[in-house]
Amino acid sequence: MLMAKLLSVPLRALSGRRYTWDNIMHLRSTMPSKRIVLLGGGNVGSHLARACSSLSGYSLIWHYERRKGMLLTDIPRDADLYIFALTDTALESVWQEMPSTGGVWIHVSGSTPLDSLTKYHADGAVLYPLQTFSRNRDIEWKHVPLYYEGHEEARLLAEALSTHTAFASSEGRRKLHLAAVLACNYSNYLVTLAEEYLSAEGFEAKTLLPLLRETFQKLEALPASEAQTGPAIRGDRTIVEQHKALLSGDTLAVYTLLAEQLLSRSKR
Amino acid sequence: MLMAKLLSVPLRALSGRRYTWDNIMHLRSTMPSKRIVLLGGGNVGSHLARACSSLSGYSLIWHYERRKGMLLTDIPRDADLYIFALTDTALESVWQEMPSTGGVWIHVSGSTPLDSLTKYHADGAVLYPLQTFSRNRDIEWKHVPLYYEGHEEARLLAEALSTHTAFASSEGRRKLHLAAVLACNYSNYLVTLAEEYLSAEGFEAKTLLPLLRETFQKLEALPASEAQTGPAIRGDRTIVEQHKALLSGDTLAVYTLLAEQLLSRSKR
Repeated sequence: MLMAKLLSVPLRALSGRRYTWDNIMHLRSTMPSKRIVLLGGGNVGSHLARACSSLSGYSLIWHYERRKGMLLTDIPRDADLYIFALTDTALESVWQEMPSTGGVWIHVSGSTPLDSLTKYHADGAVLYPLQTFSRNRDIEWKHVPLYYEGHEEARLLAEALSTHTAFASSEGRRKLHLAAVLACNYSNYLVTLAEEYLSAEGFEAKTLLPLLRETFQKLEALPASEAQTGPAIRGDRTIVEQHKALLSGDTLAVYTLLAEQLLSRSKR
Repeated sequence: MLMAKLLSVPLRALSGRRYTWDNIMHLRSTMPSKRIVLLGGGNVGSHLARACSSLSGYSLIWHYERRKGMLLTDIPRDADLYIFALTDTALESVWQEMPSTGGVWIHVSGSTPLDSLTKYHADGAVLYPLQTFSRNRDIEWKHVPLYYEGHEEARLLAEALSTHTAFASSEGRRKLHLAAVLACNYSNYLVTLAEEYLSAEGFEAKTLLPLLRETFQKLEALPASEAQTGPAIRGDRTIVEQHKALLSGDTLAVYTLLAEQLLSRSKR
């Protein structure tokens, strides 16, 4: 309401034409979109490509994927945003090869600091999605936590994509990424080990689904430390030793380490 | 239909009275419930107590909880089912102390074999819920996978509680339990470590919730091995080493072991 009231005061532009709220809305809808060049065809890149294609105020003009035989030298030089959705190891080498362009360069990595980018292009920024992306699963971008740093354009793009946005320094972002790896990538690996074990023992790999559902629904409401159950946190070393006797190799090593740590947290 | 047809043939009981389908349905609804004595006031025990209290065809007549100062010698001797929802370490000592009773004894442990129970009471059985229970969270029993073994009464109770029931041998049950511990108890522990790390670094502990949601929703559709993402499976040792430099103690040990195993699975 306040906004509408302010804007109902006629504004005089250079042309001398009077701008009312309606006029301004119309102007906005016909404003030229910010032109995006997106580099990267991996999990994050392909999801970002889909999101940027339908984002109000933005248009994806070029989607570079090295494996499609595209050349960096063919990239349009006059885009507003260049988004680098590449692995951390590829970022530096691509920046070295990049032609000089206008616009703002933005990377999306959790672990690469902003100044690694601004060495190559002064107008640099970071837009880090704290989410896991798989090629064939849709992502609701509006629920993805997005952390921005550097040039203002990263914040604006974040706010166009999601309702969960915040600033994070390069150091903070690295810590968020670390926690995400520990909680999510490594949990997924534990489930991999369990599914492989079940399959080898003649059970359906997905036998654990109802249990997984409840395990992770609990975390919506409880600190993980309070949701902890199982033989190790109960201090039941006998069961732990019985389980270890059934295992070998990598799975035994993982079971043993985590059990010992939980036993040492047990109150019994 | 076949059932109704068979039952529409009048059956002659000892009384000489004719039983039709309607009569039988009426008889069933007035049949005396099976009387349950439940031992154990922990997470599983309290959830089972609630479930058994409202289960058609059953009635919970006694809920024994040692911490309430109840005595085993006061337990009714004439129940149909005695359910032992106790930790593995408590089971044997309680069975040694139990008065001799009629009925069927059932334990609910993933790891205690059936013959540990039948040593004490010949009519023994197991009913193992492959689920995690927390005191203050409701459980939809009909979705809990229940594995039975031994006396027929365990299967009947399983089928009264849930639509996901199956036989499992003592050995199979121990393996299911092991896989559950690995995938769920230990994942929860990884989330604990991540939440503790985030809190110590000044972030909200629950910052990872949207990421956790997606991580575990993916497992509904994909084998965990295909859902794997993160620096280690990408073969990015540089990021792994950067993360390790931020950690110490137990969390460092966990991060290191899981990263090394994932790096060795990396295709790069």
